[in-house]
Amino acid sequence: MTNAAGNSLDGFFYPKSVAVIGTTDVEGSVPFDIFYNILKDRLNGIVYPVSPGKKHIAGVKTYKYVVDIEEPVDLAILVFPSAVCHMALEQCGKKGIKSVIIISAGFREVGQAGIEREAKIKAIAQKYGIRIIGPNCLGLINTDPESHLNASFARKMPAEGNIAFLSQSGALCTAVLDYAQGKHIGFSKFVSFGNKTDVSEIDLIYYLKDDPKTKVILLYLEEVTDGPGLMKAAEAAVREAGKPVLAIKSGRTSAGAAAAASHTGSLAGSDEICDAGFEQAGIIRCNTIEEMFNRAIALAYQPVPKNDRLAIITNAGGPGVLAADATVGSNVELARFTEKTQELFWKKLPRAGNQSNPVDVIGDARADRYEIAIEGALADDNVDGVAVILTPQSMTDIDDIALNICKVGEHNEKPIYTSFMGEMDVASGIDILERHKIPHYILPEDMVDSFAACCTFRKEMAHKLDAPVVFKDVDKAAAEKVLDEAAKAGRHHLPEADAEKILEAYRLPVIPRAVAKSAEEAAKAAAKIGFPVVLKVESDDIVHKSDIGGVVLNVADEKAASAAYETIMKNAKKAKPDAKVDGVLVAKMITGADEVILGLKQDTSFGPTIMFGLGGTFVEIFKDVSFRVAPIGSISAKEMVREVRAYKLLSGARGRTRRDVAAIEECLQRLSQLATDFPQIKELDINPLMVQDEGKGCHVADARIMI
Amino acid sequence: MTNAAGNSLDGFFYPKSVAVIGTTDVEGSVPFDIFYNILKDRLNGIVYPVSPGKKHIAGVKTYKYVVDIEEPVDLAILVFPSAVCHMALEQCGKKGIKSVIIISAGFREVGQAGIEREAKIKAIAQKYGIRIIGPNCLGLINTDPESHLNASFARKMPAEGNIAFLSQSGALCTAVLDYAQGKHIGFSKFVSFGNKTDVSEIDLIYYLKDDPKTKVILLYLEEVTDGPGLMKAAEAAVREAGKPVLAIKSGRTSAGAAAAASHTGSLAGSDEICDAGFEQAGIIRCNTIEEMFNRAIALAYQPVPKNDRLAIITNAGGPGVLAADATVGSNVELARFTEKTQELFWKKLPRAGNQSNPVDVIGDARADRYEIAIEGALADDNVDGVAVILTPQSMTDIDDIALNICKVGEHNEKPIYTSFMGEMDVASGIDILERHKIPHYILPEDMVDSFAACCTFRKEMAHKLDAPVVFKDVDKAAAEKVLDEAAKAGRHHLPEADAEKILEAYRLPVIPRAVAKSAEEAAKAAAKIGFPVVLKVESDDIVHKSDIGGVVLNVADEKAASAAYETIMKNAKKAKPDAKVDGVLVAKMITGADEVILGLKQDTSFGPTIMFGLGGTFVEIFKDVSFRVAPIGSISAKEMVREVRAYKLLSGARGRTRRDVAAIEECLQRLSQLATDFPQIKELDINPLMVQDEGKGCHVADARIMI
Repeated sequence: MTNAAGNSLDGFFYPKSVAVIGTTDVEGSVPFDIFYNILKDRLNGIVYPVSPGKKHIAGVKTYKYVVDIEEPVDLAILVFPSAVCHMALEQCGKKGIKSVIIISAGFREVGQAGIEREAKIKAIAQKYGIRIIGPNCLGLINTDPESHLNASFARKMPAEGNIAFLSQSGALCTAVLDYAQGKHIGFSKFVSFGNKTDVSEIDLIYYLKDDPKTKVILLYLEEVTDGPGLMKAAEAAVREAGKPVLAIKSGRTSAGAAAAASHTGSLAGSDEICDAGFEQAGIIRCNTIEEMFNRAIALAYQPVPKNDRLAIITNAGGPGVLAADATVGSNVELARFTEKTQELFWKKLPRAGNQSNPVDVIGDARADRYEIAIEGALADDNVDGVAVILTPQSMTDIDDIALNICKVGEHNEKPIYTSFMGEMDVASGIDILERHKIPHYILPEDMVDSFAACCTFRKEMAHKLDAPVVFKDVDKAAAEKVLDEAAKAGRHHLPEADAEKILEAYRLPVIPRAVAKSAEEAAKAAAKIGFPVVLKVESDDIVHKSDIGGVVLNVADEKAASAAYETIMKNAKKAKPDAKVDGVLVAKMITGADEVILGLKQDTSFGPTIMFGLGGTFVEIFKDVSFRVAPIGSISAKEMVREVRAYKLLSGARGRTRRDVAAIEECLQRLSQLATDFPQIKELDINPLMVQDEGKGCHVADARIMI
Repeated sequence: MTNAAGNSLDGFFYPKSVAVIGTTDVEGSVPFDIFYNILKDRLNGIVYPVSPGKKHIAGVKTYKYVVDIEEPVDLAILVFPSAVCHMALEQCGKKGIKSVIIISAGFREVGQAGIEREAKIKAIAQKYGIRIIGPNCLGLINTDPESHLNASFARKMPAEGNIAFLSQSGALCTAVLDYAQGKHIGFSKFVSFGNKTDVSEIDLIYYLKDDPKTKVILLYLEEVTDGPGLMKAAEAAVREAGKPVLAIKSGRTSAGAAAAASHTGSLAGSDEICDAGFEQAGIIRCNTIEEMFNRAIALAYQPVPKNDRLAIITNAGGPGVLAADATVGSNVELARFTEKTQELFWKKLPRAGNQSNPVDVIGDARADRYEIAIEGALADDNVDGVAVILTPQSMTDIDDIALNICKVGEHNEKPIYTSFMGEMDVASGIDILERHKIPHYILPEDMVDSFAACCTFRKEMAHKLDAPVVFKDVDKAAAEKVLDEAAKAGRHHLPEADAEKILEAYRLPVIPRAVAKSAEEAAKAAAKIGFPVVLKVESDDIVHKSDIGGVVLNVADEKAASAAYETIMKNAKKAKPDAKVDGVLVAKMITGADEVILGLKQDTSFGPTIMFGLGGTFVEIFKDVSFRVAPIGSISAKEMVREVRAYKLLSGARGRTRRDVAAIEECLQRLSQLATDFPQIKELDINPLMVQDEGKGCHVADARIMI
């Protein structure tokens, strides 16, 4: 049980001795509660109160300083005022304590003075090799009987369970503990990690990944500090250890309204990137605490469904329809029963009901009839999970039905979920279900959503690792040189020619082009590029090049190229005699292509991110784009292109020809490599990338780079 | 209290005498429960058990037949088996009973035999002028002490309240009653209307609109039989009586997969049309029972907010952020406090918290501090409603805070909402709030959603009536003639020319065109139409007209038109010597236009509906379309055009010129008139309508009509 850096957090969760530094005997105060909770919830070890002014607290001998304690101390909990915390921490170091929880607030979250205090704390911790949870947190709880540590000022210790909860918000923890107790939800570990000055959610996920007591990891985050680190930790939990990670990330409103200098910049809100990063790592993002726990109990209590086919059993048509409706737009399929099951139901269930899915056992159903339907559905090879709905009719034997479900649920390999609708009449039935770890939901819709989350988890767990291809044919040095020069020159927006150089260095296919200084050169360049070509006057002084006859399209051969050069030079001279003309640009003319946009943006939380979308109105009006955190492999590149709705246009819909999608995918991967090689590139737009028919490739027509 | 047809339903809700026909003395059976519920819940009147085989039931004298009862009977409730219900109903007729509830199932819902039984029932009811609720229902409840009627087999009578609940599903009613009791939600009237063979949700809405005991009307529907009728009734309730109507319409899965012969057909799923119809009528559509009641209590218990600005007060940052996040994408605004309030909060609330919205009174806040924040926010002119969040910290005096909120809530003109997060610790506080009719929500997000629903209702209530313009310049007879002839000929798909005639009759601007039989005619026609024009060979035998040189674009004058005629005829003769050529079509050439789609579809529930969208990929890939149930007025036409996302393209975004949006709006209204005049038009596509710059109008380029 060690984290990525090889440091175990066992000192926090399984201490044999705990010192609470700064405690008092004032009942109801945080410093007292923390000490007293450890005492009354019976730590499997020794707890020492440390308080300069007291001889004893709650009947326990009290020490003036932590260094006075005769035995070794594994864990210290600081509840001193923030201004003097560093002194207590220094003493912890001297005492040889390696794990410290700082409950006290008054650090980074209160501004400059606090930031300085936190830095002081951090320096002392580094000096002595101390790991810190907090400051500004509620503490932690370990329900494992081997430790049984309630080092928090939560009102009560939760029951033992296989769900771990990690929270950046301390206040939310008390509401969560209360909510969970009402629903008989237990926890393995419960941690409020506060300002995460040292131990972060990432360390904790690595620790819980290997914790045999934890099956599901829940996370409440207010800010993502190290997106890539979080993604790696979550991937390890989900794809190596097979443990679901569910997370709430709040703060959608605080959309950092940074000036957007590019398309990608304006489209890639931090929340969309958070969505993309979470999904890539297999984290299931939830919107509310209730949604998170609804899904968590389905994952924690029941086996993972082998496929997406759900059977619904109900004693009332209406709620059955509501549940079936909830599958629309989700990954859940309504199971189609085998003939055998259909015959069984036709024979044994009332004809006035419905024998196909959703099965309606009708209002007068009692436990025996529910049992036929549930066992029949579970035995069906076309069914991967069973959802049972009950409405309280006057003849419904609610508790018997609940007990029956518990019995069936115990020895079954397929998951079972319940929704006993109502509140008062069904309360005792719900109580039975919850105590037996049968997931229960007030609303049938929540039940279906939770089954859907289990199906998502199964897919995430099985997701192949998408190792990025490293293209060896890139010229990193050439790109670096251009970027360094631009940085030296203090440029933020690279000139077009520089942007092209960088893209060419990464073999992103810039349209073949050359500047000709004579008619002869123009003809030669055109022949080299391949016909048809476009000729365009090259001059910074002439803005509207078409208007003055400075552009000739669709030039078909060398003779025409030569003639076009002469025409353009003549027109330019006539229209703007004083203009400095550098020659004529000869470029390949791309016809029959679709325009797509590729983008890159540095995100403060997740680092380099990649965007894809179809050009023009699709991006601007429908924001029909896809994101990934870089680096991406070929699977992600494929997905990115396919998940925009306008993909149909590229794939040959409406009698169109199929475009070269593989070429786009390669460009995305090359862009990803560029993005990870050069974090100094803040934003990059390739707009448009002209995509031709399958096998014919694509071309960068225009690009902007911001550093 | 009369419905649209002038019939009062008072006989159902306020009977002075009730006969339960077919009751028994078997406790726990439906026939007994119905009778006994009326008795034990103390009807303000007389209840007569009617049962051929019994002398007395539950101590009450029992009659063999209803006609044997000596006194007049206002309401009869039939619990006989369906096969003999008609006999009992015949007796009710003879006894002069005008209101009958048929609880029994076994009618339309079980197939042919049941349909016949229901028809028999209906005929008897018509003969005697009897109104019927049901069959196949749970009965009804009126909590008004003037009647106090529990004519249902629900387990218990709900508390009195100002919410009415109407349900097509009987089974759901029991779950709803149970749910509501747990949350101290009372009802004014509670009706399970079953098969609605006579009294429907429409009659009931008209009745409740005038019921002084009802403030909010809730509706659970499985099918909309008469969409326009429902819309009218709901509009009367919302816009005349100022009573919110909230509805769940289930059955999204049963999307009638009718073959779609048109764009409109494939895009206008019955569920999208239901959304549109509900919104037009001011009905707030809900997805779940919980969502409906969450919103209902906000509307039933508190004043309607005068504007959309919400203040959030919390003792924990995290949940405050979650609540603020929930305003994103809703109609709710986060209130900005006045300077006065800001000063007050800065002075009186802890600096470590947050003094702007969401206000964080921090974890150690007690009732007095909450009071400062709540009263301060309520007094602020920039605040229209206050949402209070509480998390249970060890020092939180939960009940005192709840009581304080109740006190403030009583004498305030602005609404107040609460979310005490958790379950066990906050239970007594929640109980206090619920008993005092302060809306409470487990989740802050649901609290914000419910405030949003109140804001929506305020807008719906104030919505101006959108009376359709009746265009007098249409030639209804001409259109009728074309449609009649097509019907006689057994056509389902009208020929292009016929479709054009119908559109022209309704002054929908078909592109000016004429068929020329000679070069001279072509020149004349072109001059009349106005240049530039397009010439196209008119022949059913030539499909790919462009390929054989049968089309000439951009013809600029008479001479060119004449020449183009000759060229086309020569090309046609050369390419297809045997083709029957009817001449050359001369049509106005439209340039610089955007293509939009107008559509019409008959919906089985809502009748004629109108669709609008931008042409091509916008409709096909993004389904970026808007719907309305016809007839529509100018306000709806305006909204329809503006609510598609691609509207930006028409409105002059991206440096484009603004298109003639007013012309589109007129077309939509003319189409609406056509749709209501001729219900035999099943589907109609105008695709594309070419829209030119502002003031330049639009033209129908192609149209299809299916009858």
